Amino acid sequence: MNASTFAVRTEDCFARFMRIRRQTLALCAGLSAEDLMVQSMPDASPGKWHLAHTTWFFEQFVLGRDPAYRSPNTAWHYQLNSYYQSVGPMHARPQRGLLSRPSLDEVRDYRARIDEAVGELIMRGVDDVLAARIELGLQHEQQHQELLLTDIKHAFWSQPLQPVYRQALHAETENVSVPMRFLPGREGVVEIGHGDSGRFAYDNETPRHRTWLSQHTLANRLVTNGEYLAFVRDGGYRDPALWLSDGWDTVQREGWQRPLYWQEDLSSEFTLSGMHALNANAPVCHVSYFEADAFARWAGARLPTEGEWENAAVAQQAAGNFQENQRFHPIAAHAGEGMQQMYGDVWEWTASPYVSYPGFNPLPGALGEYNGKFMNGQWVLRGGSCATPQDHIRVSYRNFFPPHARWQFAGIRLGQDR
Amino acid sequence: MNASTFAVRTEDCFARFMRIRRQTLALCAGLSAEDLMVQSMPDASPGKWHLAHTTWFFEQFVLGRDPAYRSPNTAWHYQLNSYYQSVGPMHARPQRGLLSRPSLDEVRDYRARIDEAVGELIMRGVDDVLAARIELGLQHEQQHQELLLTDIKHAFWSQPLQPVYRQALHAETENVSVPMRFLPGREGVVEIGHGDSGRFAYDNETPRHRTWLSQHTLANRLVTNGEYLAFVRDGGYRDPALWLSDGWDTVQREGWQRPLYWQEDLSSEFTLSGMHALNANAPVCHVSYFEADAFARWAGARLPTEGEWENAAVAQQAAGNFQENQRFHPIAAHAGEGMQQMYGDVWEWTASPYVSYPGFNPLPGALGEYNGKFMNGQWVLRGGSCATPQDHIRVSYRNFFPPHARWQFAGIRLGQDR
Amino acid sequence: MNASTFAVRTEDCFARFMRIRRQTLALCAGLSAEDLMVQSMPDASPGKWHLAHTTWFFEQFVLGRDPAYRSPNTAWHYQLNSYYQSVGPMHARPQRGLLSRPSLDEVRDYRARIDEAVGELIMRGVDDVLAARIELGLQHEQQHQELLLTDIKHAFWSQPLQPVYRQALHAETENVSVPMRFLPGREGVVEIGHGDSGRFAYDNETPRHRTWLSQHTLANRLVTNGEYLAFVRDGGYRDPALWLSDGWDTVQREGWQRPLYWQEDLSSEFTLSGMHALNANAPVCHVSYFEADAFARWAGARLPTEGEWENAAVAQQAAGNFQENQRFHPIAAHAGEGMQQMYGDVWEWTASPYVSYPGFNPLPGALGEYNGKFMNGQWVLRGGSCATPQDHIRVSYRNFFPPHARWQFAGIRLGQDR
Amino acid sequence: MNASTFAVRTEDCFARFMRIRRQTLALCAGLSAEDLMVQSMPDASPGKWHLAHTTWFFEQFVLGRDPAYRSPNTAWHYQLNSYYQSVGPMHARPQRGLLSRPSLDEVRDYRARIDEAVGELIMRGVDDVLAARIELGLQHEQQHQELLLTDIKHAFWSQPLQPVYRQALHAETENVSVPMRFLPGREGVVEIGHGDSGRFAYDNETPRHRTWLSQHTLANRLVTNGEYLAFVRDGGYRDPALWLSDGWDTVQREGWQRPLYWQEDLSSEFTLSGMHALNANAPVCHVSYFEADAFARWAGARLPTEGEWENAAVAQQAAGNFQENQRFHPIAAHAGEGMQQMYGDVWEWTASPYVSYPGFNPLPGALGEYNGKFMNGQWVLRGGSCATPQDHIRVSYRNFFPPHARWQFAGIRLGQDR
Repeated sequence: MNASTFAVRTEDCFARFMRIRRQTLALCAGLSAEDLMVQSMPDASPGKWHLAHTTWFFEQFVLGRDPAYRSPNTAWHYQLNSYYQSVGPMHARPQRGLLSRPSLDEVRDYRARIDEAVGELIMRGVDDVLAARIELGLQHEQQHQELLLTDIKHAFWSQPLQPVYRQALHAETENVSVPMRFLPGREGVVEIGHGDSGRFAYDNETPRHRTWLSQHTLANRLVTNGEYLAFVRDGGYRDPALWLSDGWDTVQREGWQRPLYWQEDLSSEFTLSGMHALNANAPVCHVSYFEADAFARWAGARLPTEGEWENAAVAQQAAGNFQENQRFHPIAAHAGEGMQQMYGDVWEWTASPYVSYPGFNPLPGALGEYNGKFMNGQWVLRGGSCATPQDHIRVSYRNFFPPHARWQFAGIRLGQDR
Repeated sequence: MNASTFAVRTEDCFARFMRIRRQTLALCAGLSAEDLMVQSMPDASPGKWHLAHTTWFFEQFVLGRDPAYRSPNTAWHYQLNSYYQSVGPMHARPQRGLLSRPSLDEVRDYRARIDEAVGELIMRGVDDVLAARIELGLQHEQQHQELLLTDIKHAFWSQPLQPVYRQALHAETENVSVPMRFLPGREGVVEIGHGDSGRFAYDNETPRHRTWLSQHTLANRLVTNGEYLAFVRDGGYRDPALWLSDGWDTVQREGWQRPLYWQEDLSSEFTLSGMHALNANAPVCHVSYFEADAFARWAGARLPTEGEWENAAVAQQAAGNFQENQRFHPIAAHAGEGMQQMYGDVWEWTASPYVSYPGFNPLPGALGEYNGKFMNGQWVLRGGSCATPQDHIRVSYRNFFPPHARWQFAGIRLGQDR
Repeated sequence: MNASTFAVRTEDCFARFMRIRRQTLALCAGLSAEDLMVQSMPDASPGKWHLAHTTWFFEQFVLGRDPAYRSPNTAWHYQLNSYYQSVGPMHARPQRGLLSRPSLDEVRDYRARIDEAVGELIMRGVDDVLAARIELGLQHEQQHQELLLTDIKHAFWSQPLQPVYRQALHAETENVSVPMRFLPGREGVVEIGHGDSGRFAYDNETPRHRTWLSQHTLANRLVTNGEYLAFVRDGGYRDPALWLSDGWDTVQREGWQRPLYWQEDLSSEFTLSGMHALNANAPVCHVSYFEADAFARWAGARLPTEGEWENAAVAQQAAGNFQENQRFHPIAAHAGEGMQQMYGDVWEWTASPYVSYPGFNPLPGALGEYNGKFMNGQWVLRGGSCATPQDHIRVSYRNFFPPHARWQFAGIRLGQDR
Repeated sequence: MNASTFAVRTEDCFARFMRIRRQTLALCAGLSAEDLMVQSMPDASPGKWHLAHTTWFFEQFVLGRDPAYRSPNTAWHYQLNSYYQSVGPMHARPQRGLLSRPSLDEVRDYRARIDEAVGELIMRGVDDVLAARIELGLQHEQQHQELLLTDIKHAFWSQPLQPVYRQALHAETENVSVPMRFLPGREGVVEIGHGDSGRFAYDNETPRHRTWLSQHTLANRLVTNGEYLAFVRDGGYRDPALWLSDGWDTVQREGWQRPLYWQEDLSSEFTLSGMHALNANAPVCHVSYFEADAFARWAGARLPTEGEWENAAVAQQAAGNFQENQRFHPIAAHAGEGMQQMYGDVWEWTASPYVSYPGFNPLPGALGEYNGKFMNGQWVLRGGSCATPQDHIRVSYRNFFPPHARWQFAGIRLGQDR
C-alpha cells in the first residue's frame, strides 16, 4: 500500500466508510446478543468480538495516530487486540467466548462513537496517510464480515437446535450440469502480484514480480457436490494412497468421512439457511486443503498454483456470487464457454504454500504483523466466496488458511500438467 | 429418601415449590442474557443452563411420571440432560457455553410453563411418591442455585473487566480476632447418617449407621485469611514436604501460589462484590483439598473426618451465614465460646474420601445416578456455605468435590489427634 | 516401624540381606540388557532401573547414615531417585526408558559393591536403627521384585513379538470348580492395623486402632475367569449403569472390553509364560478397581472393606501361591471349606480408599515420603499375589493403586451387606 | 529415477552395496545394545531400529520382487515398516523404543543374512530395474546413517550422564574469522532439478524444470556461533517482532532461549564428542527453521530459496566436511574467496516450502510413498551436513523437515534481495 499515491475525495471516503461499517451491523440482523457471544472452536470468534475488534482497529490505527487522542475505552483494549504483539498484551484467543462484558449494546454504542469520531476526522480532510489507514481498516472490516458469517455458521451448526441464520432466497438461478473441461493456461514468464499503486492491496500481494508458469491446464468450473460425492462413495476417505501423510493422520484422528457440513446420509448439508438437500451441480464447499488435494489425486489431476490461477483470472471481471447476493451459499455454474466461477462462490485452494513474494516488505510497525508473520504452514486460496463482499476481492488477493481448516467457504478447482 | 413416610400438605408443597423456583430467578437479577451464557471452564456451566436444566429435571422426573405427558420441548432435552445415562444421550458438558438457543427469554418461558404444569399437578393432590419427587427436584434446584453463584463468580473473574455481581451489603458484623482453640470430640462408637424417614435426605446420606471415632479435637472456628497468609508467606506453596504427591504435581503444573481469587499482591481478593481488601479475620475461601491438607500439615494439625464433624455438629442449630444473608462471602467468627461457623460461610473439607456408607442403596432407576456413581476420587465437604440456602443444609449433608477443585466456597477447619 | 524394639542377630541379618538381594537378580535370569531397558508406559519402569534404584536406596538410607560415607556413584543419584523430594531433584519418571547408561553390567557391579559395603556394615554389628533401615530396604527391594515382574510382563506384551519370560511349570494343581459361598464376617468394634513393635511394618499400617465393622459376608474364594467371562458376555463393558462415572469415562476413552491381557477372542490370555488358554476356574487377574467394582455391582455384591478383609484374614496363615512358586500366575482354588486364596494369587481390590489410619505418623525425614504422600485417589489392595515374596506379606499389609491401574496382579473377592 | 538408463557393472554394484552396508555398522562401533535401543523422542528412532529397518527395506523392495521369495522374518515386518501404508499395518512410531526383541545380535544376523541374499542376487546379474532398486536401498541406507547419528546425539544428550559417542579428532583445521559478504546471484529463468537419467536421484528432485530467480545475493559462508550469540544476547528470543507467529508460539511453549545443544551459560555445546567450548567461528547448528528465519530478520536479511541455492551450488564441487571426516561436527570456514561451505557442515534451511516440482510424478506403488506424501508443512534444506556421506549428496538433493525440528545438523546461510 503506497499511501502517497491515494487520491481520495473526502465525501467518497465518508460514504464508503459508513456503508461498509453499516453492512457489518446489517449482517447481524436477526442475531441475538446470545448468538453473537458463541465461540464454537478456538479458530472462530464470537460475532460481538468481531463487531468490537474491527472498531478497536479504527481506534488504534486511525484515531490513535493523533497523539492527543484519549480513548474512553482503554479497559477494553486488552480483549479487543487480536494478535498485534507490538501494541501490547492480549486476551487469549480461545477465551473470547467468555466475554459477556462489554454487552452487545455497549459494543453497538462503541461502534457508534468511534464511527462518529472517524467520520469527523474524515470530514476535516483526508490526506494520503489517513486515506490509507482508513482503507486498511475497511478492508479489515470486510474480512471480518466474512469471518462473522463463517463463524456464525459453525456456531449454529454446533448447537443441537441448529438454527437458521437467514431464510433461503428463492433460487432463480440455472441449475444444469456443465461438463468439466480443461482449458490450456500460458507457459512462460508472467507477472503476478499487485502493482497498481493507486489501488489498495495488502502488503502480501506485493511486489508485482515475474514468475515462471509451466505447461498446464485449468478446469473451466469448480468441482461439484456430485463429483465429490463420487469420491466419497469410491472410498476416498478410506484410501491412504490418496492423501498427504498429515492429511491421512487428520482423517484418522478427526474421523473425517465427508465435507464438514454434510449430513451422515450424504444427501443434505447444513447451510446458513438450515439443512438443505445436497445440490449435485453446486460447488462442493467446506473442504480442507487435505481433502481438495486428495480429491485432485483421485481425479488424476492437481490443484492450480496461485500463479496459474492469477494469470487465468486477470482476463476476467471480478463478478460472481458474492456476499451482496445474500445467498451465503455457492451456486451451480452457468452453461457457457470459458472459465466460470473464478470469483465468488467458494475460495479455491491452490497448490501454493503461503509465502512471501520476492522482494516482499511488510508494512512498518504494528501493521506489519497483519500478514507476514503467518507465512508458515498455510496454503493460499484465491477468488473470494459467497461470503466475501464483491468490492473486497481483486485478482491479486491472497487468502490463506492451514491445511486442515474446513469452516471457510472453500472449494476446489482442478488443474493438470500437460 | 423413604417416600412412603412423607406427609405433605398440598398448599405447603405448592408454596415451597414456588418459593424455591422463584429464588433461582431472583439470583439472576442484574445478570444479562450474555452473562448467563458464559462457561468459563469445563467444570462450570452457564447460568442459563442451570435455569433450564433444573426445569428439565422437573419435566423428566415429575411430569414425566405420567405416561400420557407429552413434552413440548423434546428438542431441548438432549442439551439439558446433565449426566443421566439411562435417560439417553447428552450434549457434551464442556460445550454448554455454545448454547445460544434456546434464548434466555425462551428459557424463562420454559420455566413458567413447567412451573405451571407442576403447580397444577400439585394442586390435584400430592401423594408420597409425588412429594418425594418434587422434594428431590427442589433440593436439586437449591444445589444449582449454589453452583450458579460459584459459576458466575468464576465467569466474572475470568473476564478482563471483572464485573460486580452484587454490591456488598454494609458489613454490620463483628470483625474481631477470635483465638483458635481445639475442643475435644467424642471417642467411641457413634451413629451418623440420615435416619429420619420423615425428612428428606439424599441417598448418599443413608443409612444411618455406627462408626468408630478415635480420640480427637476440632478447632472452634474456621481458618482465617490471616492464618492462611502466614502459610503462604512461610513458603507453603514451595515446600513439597507439606503436600500430597498429587497436590504437589498440581501446584507445579498449575502454578498455584495462593487461593484462587487472591490477587498476586496478597492484599485483596475477588468477590461477588468485586475486588476487596483481604479481611484477616474472615475465613479463607476457595482453597482446594490439596491446599487445605497442606495447610493443616504446616499447622501441625489435620482435617476432621466427616464422622467427627457430624458428631460435633449434631448438637448445633444449622444457622449461620447462608445464601439468605445475601453477602455471598464468608464473614469473621463471633467472639464467644464453643464451636463456631459449623454451618454456612464455607464448606469444610474433611479427611474423608467420598464413599458409600455401609448398607448404601442408591435410588432405583435414573435417579440412582444422582450420587452413587461419583464415589471415586472425591472428598467430602460439610456444613454449607454463604451460597447455600439455609433450608437446604442438614447435619448429615455430604457435599463432594475432587481434590483440585477451588471454585466452590470451600475452606478449612482443623482437627487433631489427641 | 519402632526401630528401638528390633532384636536382630548379625548373622541372620546378613543372610537375609544377601538372600533377598540375590533373589532380585535371580528374577532377571534370561532377560537381556535390552529387555531390562524397556519402559512400556509411564507407570512402569525398566528392570535395570529397578535393579539400580533399590541399590541406591541402600546407599542413600543405610550407607548414607554415616556422614563420612562418600558415594562413588554420585553422578547416578539423580536418575535413581524415585520420588524423594527431600533428597533432591530427580529424573522424570516417564523418561526412565532413555537410560542406556549406566549399562546393565555397570549396574550389576554397582549392586555388588553396595552389597559388599552393606555386608561389611552388618558384620560390624547391627543396632536397632541399622536393623530397621536394612529391613526397610529389604521390604522395599521385595516390592520392586514384584514391580519388576509386572513391568516386564507389560513390556513383553507391548512388543509385537510378545516373548516368553519363563516357561510354565507343569501344573500339578487341582483345577476344579469350587462354588462361591458367602461366609459371615464379624459385626462390631474390631482392631486392625499393625501393633507388634517387634516385627516390621510400613508406617501406613500403623497405628493399630479400633474400627467398626457393619454386618457383612465375604466370598469364600476369588472371582474366576469363568465368572468374569459371563460378565463380559452379558455386556458388562457396554452398560453405564454398572460403572462408576470415572470408570465409564475410562472404559469409553481407553476402549476397554475385557481384562488387560485377555485376547480379543476371550479364549486366551498373555502370561509370563506366553499366550495360554484361559482357565475358567483360575482367578481373574489384571482388572482395575473400576472393573472390580462394576463386576461386583453386576453380581449383586460389593467389594470388601479393608477392615472386613483384615478381620477375616487374621485367622489364617499367610500361605498361598506366591513368587516362590515360580508360577507367576494365579491358580484355581482348592475344593474345601472356609476362606480360600486370602493370600497370594492376586491382590484383592477393597472398597477402601487409601487414607491414613487415625493417629498416623509418617516416618521422619525423607523416609516419610514412602507412603503418606500418596494418600489421594488410590484404593487399597490386600493379600499379595503370585508375584509377591511370601515373607513380604502380612495381614496388615496395605498395597494401593489408582482405580484405572490394570498391570498389577489384581483380582476380585466379593462381599455383601447382610 | 529412470531405471531403464542405468548401466551398472555387477562387481561395482556388489562392492558399493557391501561398502555402504558395512559403513552403517561401523557407525555403531562403541555403541552398546542398550544405547541402540533408546528412543528419546517420537521423531527419533533407536539405532537398532535403523539397522533393522534399512535391512527390511532391501528385503521388501529388492528380494521381495521375486514372487518366490519367502522371508524367514515375517514376524518382524510389522515393526520394521516405517510408513508404507500400501505394504501393510505398522508398529506405532513413538513405540519403537519398546522393542527389546529382536535383540541387537539377532538384528546383526538379520543384516548378514539379507546382505548375503542380496549379494547373491547381484552376482547373478544386475538388470536396470534391480540396479535401480538396490541404489534406492543404498540411498535410503545413507539417509538412515545420518539419522542414526542425529538420533544417538539426542539420545545421549537426553541422559543425565551425557556420554561421549566418539572422542574428537585433533582439529587441524584453520579457525579464523572470515568476514561475511553477500555475492550476487543470477536473475532470470534458470533450470533446476535432476535431469540426468543416468544418475540416481529421488523422485522429489524431478523433473528438471525452469523457474524464475529474482534479483538476489547469497552470503559467502554460513552463519557462525559468534554471530548467532550476538542475536541471543540482543534479546532475539524475547522479541516477537522477529518471529513468525508459529515460531513465537513455539518459543513460548517450549521455552527456547538458544540452540538445542547449547548450555545455559552460552559458552559450550553438547557434541558427539561430549560437551565442548563454543567455537565462535564455527557454523551455528541445531537451529530450527523458525530460528533461522528469525535470525535472518534480525540480521536484515532473509533465507535463500532453493532455486537460488541450487543455481549457486551447481558451479561447485560437492566437497566439504562430511560424514567421512568423522568429525560429526561443523567446522569454521576457510579464509578465501567465493562461496564456501555450500556442501557439508550443516544442512541449510531455505525459504522454500517443500512442495512438488511442476510435472512431478511419484514412483509407482509403495515406493511412491517415499517423498511425495510429506509435501505439507515442511521446509527444504540443502547441501548436506557433517553427518551426511559425501557420495549421498548432490546439487539437486532436497532434504525437508518441519519448521520446529532442531535435532538435525541444520544451520543458516543468509541471502538478500537486491
